[in-house]
Amino acid sequence: MQQPVQKRSLFVGIDIGGTKILAAVATPEGRILARAKKKTLPKVATFPQDPVWLSERITETALAAIEKAGVPAEAIRAVGVGAPGPTNIYTGRVLTAVNLPGWHNGFDLGPVLSEALNMPVYVDNDVNVGLLGEHTFGAARGLKDVVGLFVGTGLGGALILDGKLRRGFRWSAGEVGHTYLYWPGQQPMDIEHIASRGAISKQLTSELNKGRSPILESILSQRSDRRITSGVIRKALAKGDPATQRAIAQTQEAIAVLIASIANLLDPEAFVLGGGLVESLGESFLEPIREKAYPLFFVRHRVEEVQLMPAALGDDSGVLGAVALAKSLAD
Amino acid sequence: MQQPVQKRSLFVGIDIGGTKILAAVATPEGRILARAKKKTLPKVATFPQDPVWLSERITETALAAIEKAGVPAEAIRAVGVGAPGPTNIYTGRVLTAVNLPGWHNGFDLGPVLSEALNMPVYVDNDVNVGLLGEHTFGAARGLKDVVGLFVGTGLGGALILDGKLRRGFRWSAGEVGHTYLYWPGQQPMDIEHIASRGAISKQLTSELNKGRSPILESILSQRSDRRITSGVIRKALAKGDPATQRAIAQTQEAIAVLIASIANLLDPEAFVLGGGLVESLGESFLEPIREKAYPLFFVRHRVEEVQLMPAALGDDSGVLGAVALAKSLAD
Repeated sequence: MQQPVQKRSLFVGIDIGGTKILAAVATPEGRILARAKKKTLPKVATFPQDPVWLSERITETALAAIEKAGVPAEAIRAVGVGAPGPTNIYTGRVLTAVNLPGWHNGFDLGPVLSEALNMPVYVDNDVNVGLLGEHTFGAARGLKDVVGLFVGTGLGGALILDGKLRRGFRWSAGEVGHTYLYWPGQQPMDIEHIASRGAISKQLTSELNKGRSPILESILSQRSDRRITSGVIRKALAKGDPATQRAIAQTQEAIAVLIASIANLLDPEAFVLGGGLVESLGESFLEPIREKAYPLFFVRHRVEEVQLMPAALGDDSGVLGAVALAKSLAD
Repeated sequence: MQQPVQKRSLFVGIDIGGTKILAAVATPEGRILARAKKKTLPKVATFPQDPVWLSERITETALAAIEKAGVPAEAIRAVGVGAPGPTNIYTGRVLTAVNLPGWHNGFDLGPVLSEALNMPVYVDNDVNVGLLGEHTFGAARGLKDVVGLFVGTGLGGALILDGKLRRGFRWSAGEVGHTYLYWPGQQPMDIEHIASRGAISKQLTSELNKGRSPILESILSQRSDRRITSGVIRKALAKGDPATQRAIAQTQEAIAVLIASIANLLDPEAFVLGGGLVESLGESFLEPIREKAYPLFFVRHRVEEVQLMPAALGDDSGVLGAVALAKSLAD
């Protein structure tokens, strides 16, 4: 039998990704009681451009998680949401979300969800929320300053400075994937064009098309979708595929230089690295980054105290971060 | 006749540069009553390595300014100092100062000056102090978030985030000149190797040595020291010297890319650009930077509200910033 649940004692965390919506019901301590998942976009040729359509799907995911937890709606104190775009946390408006049809010109996600669920809803940018999760429940607990770098399809970032998420003047801080690689005479290039799982996949696809990567080819031939996932990259590295080794080394070097530049600018206490690629490759991915980054820190004083650590929450950083957001903002 | 001065109503601001020490006596509103100046290093072949030697010179400069102001020591409430290195503002210790003999391993400047002057002394990094001056008395008054970039011998930076100087975990924030230019396959290079008056002078010296810059040569021939100062660069641009135009364009492009990367990371309200080169060239230097930087801001929402402005205090930003520091920290 389920124990009786205190009124307003639980939180719902929602993570809106480009491919899936995750929702979880959790305690204030971050213990997850139940989860639900839906695909973000339906399998139809023409996706409805009505922005409300997606918010209904998000509502359903939240309600499914609450139902699975077996708790009444009154048990939920507040709902937190991580949204894939810059978000005004006071109004709950997602200002733009380039990857979501109908949300390009912004969407009042907080008010719409709040009315649909009849619960207080707090919305923030998904990468901010992920770092807040690591700061509240994960690798970065107790740290005053931490820079989060999340290496996935793109390269996402977020900042906690002086114990607080840095949201920015236009709610747009942390867009670290759009740090520019630049060399005199070259056109500036987004670092995520080199340093992301997406960039690596693209580069390796080009190598495969030229027949230059037989090891990777043999790994992919076992997958019907032939997608170069983080898991595929891990296997290709383990088998010594040279093209994959080169692409990973390039990514590590770019991330190391980025970390050093950010360290010289912001002088944070720690960097937390997460995202699918980091989770999949683990310490063998991080160690070469540390080796390249630290010598580039300009001020050498106490340099050994600056931490460069892996994220701890994995796929749960989004929903747990959303729980942390709701917990920190709920009255 | 001097009006009687209220006890503890004035501040002394001290700016320790690589070539000169400036001191000023000022009101809490930033009105300068008197100034004094001394060369930082004496003209002797072997400079004394005793770190106290320099602090005595700093003390003398402060006392000279107080004497010129014609006020008694009791009129001074506190002394602020900008020091050329990372500084622990709680202890007044300069942690390292590579350009000052005897200070490499740190120096307790605050306590030493405080004892010598018998006044409360507050010390911070010189670039932090300069930006604080612009924030308190200059171009950035009233702004919540501002990034300061100072283009001089090197490229210095400082950050005010959420209304407060960002000093960093190791007192080392703002070292923006050590942001890395990076391109896959290249060794990372400090941006100040391209974007500083020092870098431009070096590049132009090499052009001169190859006989490639007759316009600049004719300007320099009128100076006994043949130094490529910011003023010389301004004249060479005005006369259409192609080598100088190229060097300035390269600097502008690098600074524009840097500003865009910082905007994407921190999303500040404003950038304030100062330093000798910016003061000398003015708007004609800034406008091409704006034109190149804004299109590189990733989030377009309200991009036109982000300001990119010139500093207002010129050479006084150091002493007035030191006054602002003393004013903000004095009890």
